[in-house]
Amino acid sequence: MVDIAMIEAARTRIGGRAKRTPLLSSPFLDEIAGRRLFVKAECLQHSGSFKFRGGWSAVSGLDPAVREKGVIAFSSGNHAQGVALAARMHGIPAVIVMPMDAPKLKIDNTRAFGAEVVLYDRQNEDRDAIGAALSSERGLTLIKPFDEPLVIAGQGTTGLEIAEQAADEDIGAAEVLVPCGGGGLTAGIALALEARSPSFRVRPCEPAGFDDTTRSLASGKIERNATLLGSICDAIITPQPGNITFPIMQRLCGPGVVVTDRQALDAMALAFTRLKIVIEPGGAVALAAALFHGNEIVGDTVIAVASGGNVDANVFMAALDGYRDR
Amino acid sequence: MVDIAMIEAARTRIGGRAKRTPLLSSPFLDEIAGRRLFVKAECLQHSGSFKFRGGWSAVSGLDPAVREKGVIAFSSGNHAQGVALAARMHGIPAVIVMPMDAPKLKIDNTRAFGAEVVLYDRQNEDRDAIGAALSSERGLTLIKPFDEPLVIAGQGTTGLEIAEQAADEDIGAAEVLVPCGGGGLTAGIALALEARSPSFRVRPCEPAGFDDTTRSLASGKIERNATLLGSICDAIITPQPGNITFPIMQRLCGPGVVVTDRQALDAMALAFTRLKIVIEPGGAVALAAALFHGNEIVGDTVIAVASGGNVDANVFMAALDGYRDR
Repeated sequence: MVDIAMIEAARTRIGGRAKRTPLLSSPFLDEIAGRRLFVKAECLQHSGSFKFRGGWSAVSGLDPAVREKGVIAFSSGNHAQGVALAARMHGIPAVIVMPMDAPKLKIDNTRAFGAEVVLYDRQNEDRDAIGAALSSERGLTLIKPFDEPLVIAGQGTTGLEIAEQAADEDIGAAEVLVPCGGGGLTAGIALALEARSPSFRVRPCEPAGFDDTTRSLASGKIERNATLLGSICDAIITPQPGNITFPIMQRLCGPGVVVTDRQALDAMALAFTRLKIVIEPGGAVALAAALFHGNEIVGDTVIAVASGGNVDANVFMAALDGYRDR
Repeated sequence: MVDIAMIEAARTRIGGRAKRTPLLSSPFLDEIAGRRLFVKAECLQHSGSFKFRGGWSAVSGLDPAVREKGVIAFSSGNHAQGVALAARMHGIPAVIVMPMDAPKLKIDNTRAFGAEVVLYDRQNEDRDAIGAALSSERGLTLIKPFDEPLVIAGQGTTGLEIAEQAADEDIGAAEVLVPCGGGGLTAGIALALEARSPSFRVRPCEPAGFDDTTRSLASGKIERNATLLGSICDAIITPQPGNITFPIMQRLCGPGVVVTDRQALDAMALAFTRLKIVIEPGGAVALAAALFHGNEIVGDTVIAVASGGNVDANVFMAALDGYRDR
């Protein structure tokens, strides 16, 4: 359903429009991790996260007559911004359905990218139903956040770059740690690396209490989170892994790694001090896994994807404060 | 004395060891700047600033028999870290003479890179005299922070990348804003662009009250700063432009742009929100000039160099706080 040819096709459609984000490193972080550590800085991607890749891939992959009617997406924020920016660059309308407790920065940015934002109550309303109603009413095409082949293919272009940049650094084998919500980025990278760097193994990373993918991989069937509330890692909280993404992760990924909120915040503080990049909590769980869960990782080299950087100033300052005060 | 051939030779010696830092952009920043704005993110360079380029260029350019005795440098912090890291990668000793009021992070990092740190009083002691004494005593080679052809050539490799990345973005002409202390980075970039992108013009940027280069360019002779104390932009505070760098800047650069400390801090906050990079105050003056001094800039495209990101958490948080509270 999704394969390396679709990922290559997504890269061709994206052309030079997505940034080739750098692979960063610091001897100080290597020391903490106990092995060579590289960070794929997707927080530097347009719209502040990898979601621009999937957004562009999906919008550009639509039939022009369908595309011009517009697109709709539901998202806690990063998919919203990625789709909104891709839609604006295509000159088509976009409606984004967002939870009302999403970070203010993400809501503001989605509006600033020209999208119409519809807010809903994450606890009491069903975003799929809201999206489907708006979709049929206005003839909009729904761009799902992860369980959509064109989106997975777009996220997979991150994996093509990792394969190339790892070769430049003479990395022969590595574990590749990926922040995992519904699994679009994780599955896309795993497919790309299966084809381009088969000695690499992808590991989904999640926050404690919201480890649906880790538990699903362990039990062999899709498991759900008990709640969607109470995590600072808003970007990667989803009810369960996707019907398309889960079988891909099951076939290609190693066990999940689960980190605490405090470890994610500490990883943000260390990325500030050592890499000079801004990561949001959900985008920092893979770096946290690399830094603080070394005993669960195999081999002498680890690559952590920093998947997004759309964080409000007060949350970022809390991360710096908390790290400094210990 | 320094020319494009020396810059190309420095790039060859550096090889893949320095990062090719990305050229970042955001539609939100374009809007504030009133034109297309690109940021060359040298804060993502090894050691957290462009100084690694000059450090590597100088250390690698020494005769091996001379080099193995070790090097010495005096620096407020970024040159210290750049030289210390380059020395460690060459396996040679490094002594760094630093002002005792330098940011703690820079002192700590310089030591962590394996250098011996000698602290001095910026107000009452002469760092040149201290450096010269240690140098002759131990047979160390002094690596000057900016008035040294090999160092200027190393910093100039930033300009080669700007020329190539601007071509990728179809930028035909631009003003290139560069944070300016002694002028090593400014002169190096100006020389590289003279050869590779002659329709680009370099503009040195400085903090108010420490605008020695801006005044020197205006008067046609080297002017000094009245004091070296009282700026938050520690990375770029020097007594005066260099004897080698000033004639290069005089021949190739447009007028200087002078920004307030508050503008530098606001530029740091906007880089956090929009670009997801960490810039230190001195490294943010060119971005501040691009954002808040648009009426002094010519043309529809501006490229600002973010020269370093080695900032203590409390200063960074003050920048975010101050921006949010207005």
